[in-house]
Amino acid sequence: MSNTVVKIDIKQQNLTDKQLEALDLMWKESVRDILNCTSLAGCGHPGGSMSSINFLLLLYSIANISPQNMTSPQRDRVIVSHGHISPGLYSTLARFGFFNSDEMVLNYRKFGSRYAGHVESTVPGVEWNTGNLGQGISAAVGIAMAGKIKSLNYKTVVCMGDGEQQKGQISEARRVASKFNLKDLICIIDYNRYQIGGAISDVMPQNIIDNYKSDGWNVIVIENGHDWKQLFTGLKKAWNNEVDFKSHPTVIIANTIMGYGVSFMRNGYDYHGRALTVEEHKKAFEELKLENTLNDLKAQRKKLPKDSCAPVKTVSPTVKVNIGEPITYAADVMTDNRSAYGAALADLAKLNNKDVSKWSICGISCDLEGSVKMNAFRKISPENFIECGIQEHHSAVMSGSLSKEGMQVFFSTFGTFGVDEVFNQQRLNAFNKTNVKTVCTHLGLSVGEDGPTHQCIDYIGLIRNIPGYSIFIPADPNQTDHMIRYVASVYGNFFVGMGRAKTPVIANENCEPFFGKSYKFTPGKSDIIMQGNDACVIAIGPMLDYVLKVARALKNEKGLNIRVINAGSVVPFDRDSLIAAAKETKGIISVEDHYVKTGIGSIIDQILVENKIAVPVIHLGVKSFVESGDPEDLYISQGMGLEDIKKCVVDLISSSK
Amino acid sequence: MSNTVVKIDIKQQNLTDKQLEALDLMWKESVRDILNCTSLAGCGHPGGSMSSINFLLLLYSIANISPQNMTSPQRDRVIVSHGHISPGLYSTLARFGFFNSDEMVLNYRKFGSRYAGHVESTVPGVEWNTGNLGQGISAAVGIAMAGKIKSLNYKTVVCMGDGEQQKGQISEARRVASKFNLKDLICIIDYNRYQIGGAISDVMPQNIIDNYKSDGWNVIVIENGHDWKQLFTGLKKAWNNEVDFKSHPTVIIANTIMGYGVSFMRNGYDYHGRALTVEEHKKAFEELKLENTLNDLKAQRKKLPKDSCAPVKTVSPTVKVNIGEPITYAADVMTDNRSAYGAALADLAKLNNKDVSKWSICGISCDLEGSVKMNAFRKISPENFIECGIQEHHSAVMSGSLSKEGMQVFFSTFGTFGVDEVFNQQRLNAFNKTNVKTVCTHLGLSVGEDGPTHQCIDYIGLIRNIPGYSIFIPADPNQTDHMIRYVASVYGNFFVGMGRAKTPVIANENCEPFFGKSYKFTPGKSDIIMQGNDACVIAIGPMLDYVLKVARALKNEKGLNIRVINAGSVVPFDRDSLIAAAKETKGIISVEDHYVKTGIGSIIDQILVENKIAVPVIHLGVKSFVESGDPEDLYISQGMGLEDIKKCVVDLISSSK
Repeated sequence: MSNTVVKIDIKQQNLTDKQLEALDLMWKESVRDILNCTSLAGCGHPGGSMSSINFLLLLYSIANISPQNMTSPQRDRVIVSHGHISPGLYSTLARFGFFNSDEMVLNYRKFGSRYAGHVESTVPGVEWNTGNLGQGISAAVGIAMAGKIKSLNYKTVVCMGDGEQQKGQISEARRVASKFNLKDLICIIDYNRYQIGGAISDVMPQNIIDNYKSDGWNVIVIENGHDWKQLFTGLKKAWNNEVDFKSHPTVIIANTIMGYGVSFMRNGYDYHGRALTVEEHKKAFEELKLENTLNDLKAQRKKLPKDSCAPVKTVSPTVKVNIGEPITYAADVMTDNRSAYGAALADLAKLNNKDVSKWSICGISCDLEGSVKMNAFRKISPENFIECGIQEHHSAVMSGSLSKEGMQVFFSTFGTFGVDEVFNQQRLNAFNKTNVKTVCTHLGLSVGEDGPTHQCIDYIGLIRNIPGYSIFIPADPNQTDHMIRYVASVYGNFFVGMGRAKTPVIANENCEPFFGKSYKFTPGKSDIIMQGNDACVIAIGPMLDYVLKVARALKNEKGLNIRVINAGSVVPFDRDSLIAAAKETKGIISVEDHYVKTGIGSIIDQILVENKIAVPVIHLGVKSFVESGDPEDLYISQGMGLEDIKKCVVDLISSSK
Repeated sequence: MSNTVVKIDIKQQNLTDKQLEALDLMWKESVRDILNCTSLAGCGHPGGSMSSINFLLLLYSIANISPQNMTSPQRDRVIVSHGHISPGLYSTLARFGFFNSDEMVLNYRKFGSRYAGHVESTVPGVEWNTGNLGQGISAAVGIAMAGKIKSLNYKTVVCMGDGEQQKGQISEARRVASKFNLKDLICIIDYNRYQIGGAISDVMPQNIIDNYKSDGWNVIVIENGHDWKQLFTGLKKAWNNEVDFKSHPTVIIANTIMGYGVSFMRNGYDYHGRALTVEEHKKAFEELKLENTLNDLKAQRKKLPKDSCAPVKTVSPTVKVNIGEPITYAADVMTDNRSAYGAALADLAKLNNKDVSKWSICGISCDLEGSVKMNAFRKISPENFIECGIQEHHSAVMSGSLSKEGMQVFFSTFGTFGVDEVFNQQRLNAFNKTNVKTVCTHLGLSVGEDGPTHQCIDYIGLIRNIPGYSIFIPADPNQTDHMIRYVASVYGNFFVGMGRAKTPVIANENCEPFFGKSYKFTPGKSDIIMQGNDACVIAIGPMLDYVLKVARALKNEKGLNIRVINAGSVVPFDRDSLIAAAKETKGIISVEDHYVKTGIGSIIDQILVENKIAVPVIHLGVKSFVESGDPEDLYISQGMGLEDIKKCVVDLISSSK
């Protein structure tokens, strides 16, 4: 057998005999690869791969995707949400020339190879990494939205499992797709009726058809998802928009059979997540009348060098955005960082969103447009503003996929919702090398009266767990403006966080804005706001103003010279200024509107230990869940009020005498 | 006006005139309280409180709840999911004598008082803290499930907003409620058609009726949710099960008006989240023909002592569970910690689940029963095993609410799903002082070929952000058994985490199991597995065996005596044994199958800095997202292989000479 690429025109009436023959051949080759690669690896998911393989093959024969146009903006996009069926997808991609099928089979799930256990974009042809279920449809909605904004008319097709339809996030994605009339979005569900734990009807009964209909989708049911003609008819209808609600997306529910193609695997949910044994493999190949070369392949796999087939390296695209000139808030202005964020974002929209076919700025909010100050942006650039409702899980993933389509995406909501609620979605975005600027407001006890459910005190502690995710906390409206323009200028995932309350403009000794026109924000660089060697206080966000008040008072009252550092770039942290302070002053005090065990205090400790520096160190921060109340009272309750900070500094200095 | 408690029998045909009159009076008093308490606090959510107040009042007049029976197992339970309508709920509870309404009005959202900004159980009569939307229905499902398991026949009623229906978690909760035939569960939706960002039809169009129907619920629509008679008819039908699908739950959709009761507030979504100004308040009171005492109240509020009305303190219930005798795995047994967990859980079920009206053990899984080894438990105690499907957000909250109903709840899935995906749900559980034993398997690179989406490398880094949540990582099957029995014996939230792979039994010098019959697991206590003063290596989980191999080899080969500590109790951490090791040996090395920046390494650094100890410290752990492959290869790729650990120890010792 040899790889035979067949491309089918969606406009043709029926499949030709030649096409049917070619599809049959590809099917057999794919089943062979699925069974070989999983049995070689000794693990993997053949069952769902075999129920999905028919529609995958037909889909790739129809879609405008090939190894030649993988970077073309016009190409159709395919996402596979049930990432465990990587053998099914990889064997399909091999048929269409994205890589050599033998290479895939030999290297599947092998350390150092690109052919990862779940669907990953280390593999040529893969658009989006999946593995955690229920995420792919949100990614597809983001990509379809980009096509709509840029008027590119491509199709976005997301293939999904049936079990994963249970994930609530899917209902969020469905509503967003309907709201924005994403008519070029098609979902295909592999309805084989089994999930890892058994029959869906036992594990978690669901009514997929009515679920989709209730959210405004067109539904096409294919009685036999292994019949090429039926699949073609269904795909044709969806592709050509021959549906009732022409402006809405369409789902194709393909009735399939788990383990289709091998008699003893049929409906065997045991084969969802395990490879065939040598004996079973032999039996299957006999039944399929395929030449069994498993032993030979095993020998070859053993001999492979470790780096025989390394992951495809991707280069981050160059961002072409005009970040304009910073807005400077005078030293006597009283506003909040949120408003400064809103003004910067509006400015960026004015400068960049006239031609959305180029790099543009996009805003996503979750029913909190007003609170996160996106109103002005929306007015200037309504087509690039996406209001997703109270559906944060979907919104986070959609932000990620959209951000890979030539857009600087600002995803904004309260910290509790943009960090705590969607941590895993942020993690999966990072893993997908996305380009999301998560700007969260209402951090910390600054939220005050809304109480502990809304007081996000773990934004550093959580996001620090995601390798490569930067964290910036501006001290005032001016630094907010600089940070927002910075993150707009580069590719990558960034978190910029702020409180709710008004924040005084930080001034230098001449009473001019510290973060004025001449200031340049640099990741990994702290700002020394006041010089001094009696002690060093490191603060972030709203606490900087508190600390400065204390430092000035101590200077006037006691003649003490406190070094005050603003650590706005939390990740990466400025190691040098910390080490210098530890060596040059009598000790370090950190102050943060964050859980004290997992914020900048923990970063400071790590750097000190790494550098074998033992100096007096005190960390002030939030000690536990806090209650409703005025922020001032709440800070005092946590030992972070003005007097507390003052006492702490004085005690540290006197104890070290 | 005075507080007039009216109780209504759900069996009566119609509301009497006297009851109608009393309801009207209560309504007026409640509106007065809502407007007063929010204007006094200068913030809060009057709009939705006023659209919800009619059904809240009628509900409490029907339900079997009173200040007298708040701890009775037979009482009906009310959950308010849209926690921002606390003025509505609190003013209702005041009408029914749970507390004095003036006290509430004066103390609302005040620092130090029990009357929190969002609905909190610091307030007498509140069953479950809410504030983050879309969570309450899952809590209600858990409580209704407890009633079903214990045959208590109480009603569980959850009141919800309409905007929050967008949250995907609600669809998960709906399916679970239908699957388990929770016919005594009633939802009431305040369908006022506005959310904070504007009309729902603009922000995120939704089809609530069809959404519920598609998941098998009975739907009752009340045309005018401010008409007592219509509300009574609807509630009667739901309460008495006069519905089509008698075994399924019922939702009542009450058409209401945002800001109902004051003409200029009607449909004003601006009033969703802000208090009336003094001028508006005056106008409203004139229209309502209510005596305006705002100025007087303001003066009174100012004079209140800070602790005039402190939160209600709750005492954790005493758990009555027989934890039996530990199972000991002999030193030559090769099994995985997961299987040891499954065996311990099955044993606990045998010992405790004969009479489920008493404290019993409950198991919740998300389509991974087999992988997390809950099969034996299920066989022994099918009625206490709850399979929730691929619906982790719901499952985490349901575990929480169920755990407060006299059950030790074991919630088990893979680490990625039980930690990363549901972090916020775990946070909200902790805030609700729940009693969940989250036992996650498939942690770390031990997952191997399933790749980075499934490799949970942040279980410590995340859960450490939740105050009061303990984290235990067993080193072998024996310690697993001890830890599981321990967490089964106490009230509170615990995380017990383990990998996928088989783990050798840790043995002492006599080749007997280290964690044998005589071992007792104590939180906050590490285990010194090998004594020595040349260096100290602290390990957790599967890395302990690696470290022991290295230590033994170094003893044989170089005569080095390495102190090997197992830090199974990660939170709380054993400070004393760390400090002793830092003082008595040449340096500390930590080894963990976890992201190196946020695991035990960061805890160690904090303790050292706090104690001003500067010694050589090296942390070995996972440095970034890792790929698919054999765990052994993956460890080596992260510099954590046997040879890496060995080199690290030798280098540390030689550098300190």
